[in-house]
Amino acid sequence: MLVTDLIRRKRDGAELQRNEIEFLVNGYTRDTIPDYQMSAWLMAVLWRGMTRAELAALTESMLNSGRVLDFSELAAAKVDKHSTGGVGDKTSLIIAPIVAAAGLYVPMISGRGLGHTGGTLDKLESIPAFNVNLSVGDFRRVLAQCGAGLIGQTAEIAPADKKLYALRDVTGTVESPYLICASIMSKKLAEGIDALVLDVKTGSGAFMKAEKDAVFLAELMVETGQRLGKRVAALITDMDQPLGCAVGNALEVAECVDVLNGKGPDDLRELSLILSAWMFVLGKRVESIDQGRELAAQMISNGKARGKFREMIRLQGGDPAVMENPGLLPQARHKADVKSPASGFVTGIMCEQIGTAGVLLGGGRARKEDSVDPAVGIMVHKKVGDKVSAGEALCTVYYNSAERLASAAPLIEQSYTIQATAPLRARPLVHRVIGDSK
Amino acid sequence: MLVTDLIRRKRDGAELQRNEIEFLVNGYTRDTIPDYQMSAWLMAVLWRGMTRAELAALTESMLNSGRVLDFSELAAAKVDKHSTGGVGDKTSLIIAPIVAAAGLYVPMISGRGLGHTGGTLDKLESIPAFNVNLSVGDFRRVLAQCGAGLIGQTAEIAPADKKLYALRDVTGTVESPYLICASIMSKKLAEGIDALVLDVKTGSGAFMKAEKDAVFLAELMVETGQRLGKRVAALITDMDQPLGCAVGNALEVAECVDVLNGKGPDDLRELSLILSAWMFVLGKRVESIDQGRELAAQMISNGKARGKFREMIRLQGGDPAVMENPGLLPQARHKADVKSPASGFVTGIMCEQIGTAGVLLGGGRARKEDSVDPAVGIMVHKKVGDKVSAGEALCTVYYNSAERLASAAPLIEQSYTIQATAPLRARPLVHRVIGDSK
Repeated sequence: MLVTDLIRRKRDGAELQRNEIEFLVNGYTRDTIPDYQMSAWLMAVLWRGMTRAELAALTESMLNSGRVLDFSELAAAKVDKHSTGGVGDKTSLIIAPIVAAAGLYVPMISGRGLGHTGGTLDKLESIPAFNVNLSVGDFRRVLAQCGAGLIGQTAEIAPADKKLYALRDVTGTVESPYLICASIMSKKLAEGIDALVLDVKTGSGAFMKAEKDAVFLAELMVETGQRLGKRVAALITDMDQPLGCAVGNALEVAECVDVLNGKGPDDLRELSLILSAWMFVLGKRVESIDQGRELAAQMISNGKARGKFREMIRLQGGDPAVMENPGLLPQARHKADVKSPASGFVTGIMCEQIGTAGVLLGGGRARKEDSVDPAVGIMVHKKVGDKVSAGEALCTVYYNSAERLASAAPLIEQSYTIQATAPLRARPLVHRVIGDSK
Repeated sequence: MLVTDLIRRKRDGAELQRNEIEFLVNGYTRDTIPDYQMSAWLMAVLWRGMTRAELAALTESMLNSGRVLDFSELAAAKVDKHSTGGVGDKTSLIIAPIVAAAGLYVPMISGRGLGHTGGTLDKLESIPAFNVNLSVGDFRRVLAQCGAGLIGQTAEIAPADKKLYALRDVTGTVESPYLICASIMSKKLAEGIDALVLDVKTGSGAFMKAEKDAVFLAELMVETGQRLGKRVAALITDMDQPLGCAVGNALEVAECVDVLNGKGPDDLRELSLILSAWMFVLGKRVESIDQGRELAAQMISNGKARGKFREMIRLQGGDPAVMENPGLLPQARHKADVKSPASGFVTGIMCEQIGTAGVLLGGGRARKEDSVDPAVGIMVHKKVGDKVSAGEALCTVYYNSAERLASAAPLIEQSYTIQATAPLRARPLVHRVIGDSK
């Protein structure tokens, strides 16, 4: 098999066979196919796209390039949720305990913040001593004991994706929905799960800002997962404003604890319940979304989800006392309000700018090698549809550097649109569902 | 300037600026831009194409990546001809002496056989002791003394092209007309010429089989040359059957000597005269193509062109006695006729197959590192339109290995279409001219 022929055929729009794609992925992972051939092929894929069969073959080859976890010794269903990333998107920390509390297993391998979006690992690491770098053996023990474990990517899982992603990053080949799908699904399906709920974000704070792009990616992921024998559904959810109020690692953990305590912002609580419901349905724990939602709400009201989170923190080396005393989480030294320049209604928030402001405060990374400041962030007091008076606080910024505040605050203020009349209609929390509850 | 941004912008169809393209070419030539970024960019160029300004910038950057020859000390115009390659395409060996005989300079840097097509250097090297590897200094002396020199590519000329071509060869990015144009024109314009005639082949033996592809490439090359300040024209010429009768290195040299002696096949003589005429016109030696054709014919009939070829062979170390005694050229040990299976008229010849048969005989290269057998080849006796009787020889094959003959002969036979009636119309020798005689 000649690599050049495979590049040429993809370039000319032909469909590659499963064994040909496997040959490419394996050769690249084992260093027998050089970067310069792979990057030409990736650009040809970005150009021509892939058939669903090619995409499944690519995903499966990447999945099989490393260790595929197997938790078949655990009797109940293994389910996970993946979000394409947003601002204030912290549902994983709420959902994993809820779903584990109801008896399913959630082996969640998460990522770090990317661009303007936050990352689950960064959030968890704001909990003093919390360890996201468990070995597979320790991960298995945590999972068996409490039903949920949240760790970072390991070198053993889907090494092809790690290598391909680094290459895509420097060759202008990140943006292909096919390559994004294969990257996400190869990692998620290596978790040894039975079912997966995808939270595909759309709106000004999402990577896929246009809903049609989000839907297209969601369809690719659902079909790819199903072709590889998993139960998968995708929810297209709103990311046109931050989810909940907290944007920033420790602030978001505190907000998750609020939700697990039966409080917290409505939108965050509601989306967490819906996503949990879908996990229950796909994990065959309940028969309908309504039943699932009820079960999830019950896990909060009876305190079991809160207990699971506490247990998971403890098992992963963290200090569970943060559950009762959020003051134990890292605290920023200063805070300042961003005030409304006018009276009226909030009719829009440029959500990506809020995320970028969080990065500028030090809560995210400008470059991969940067460290994050877990304490800084933004509490959003006014969301779309809210009434506001001139001079009233739109947000409170938690900061450790006056210089960083100075660069972040204007971004926040400019991201708000204040108008005389309220927006006609609120955007729904869930725009659409791809896949079904079978 | 970030390479990734330049890849992304080309990928998205944007136009790059001259300095951005220069940055890419220089960085790649100097090894500061890695292969994997360049190959992704090349695939994006293959996908999106280039504007004429981008193409001129690419060609100029590649041209300036190495030494640009300067023959301004020579009083008359410096002109050259380049062919995109064909089967039996041997006009360079006829044209260079004709044009030099009329007082212009022809500093011709040529290539080797590629795929099914022959190469000028391989043909010249069938002349005993002929040296195509002159230093630039020796090339200059040969040129000054006899008006024509034919050498191979040196490491000093357009090194960016050498490096880019090697990368394109293994990344499925050879076929872009833009990249083909930049490759050809950067090398040709490094010869220090004032004018260039392009012989762009079309038909079954050409790389650009469809006339529209040949025309498109020709237009790109003419405009690029003109943007870089040269007088350039392109002739779209027929390559739907071999040019002349000889296909094979020594056989072709002998046929060129025939033409210079006022004999040889009509089509080869005619195309040589027309191309020479265009060189005279663009070199401002005459004012019209008719005058140019007449001058070229005169250089043959008065023996001056023949004398120039003899002088050039001598100056480049070869044995000029081959001019009088073609038996001094390498001779194959055996010959065999390929006979017509039927009576009728030749209505078509699959020309690429004839070229491939020549390669199979050992006259060309299957891989770059192969050596060629200068003696072997094919003499085509029957061309399109010719009447033929069953059992009559279509071609004579000159060979040194019975095994090679066995693989080549069927290809030759199958390449002929023999039908009961003559073809209605012959394809013209020159299909079209791009550019004008100003």
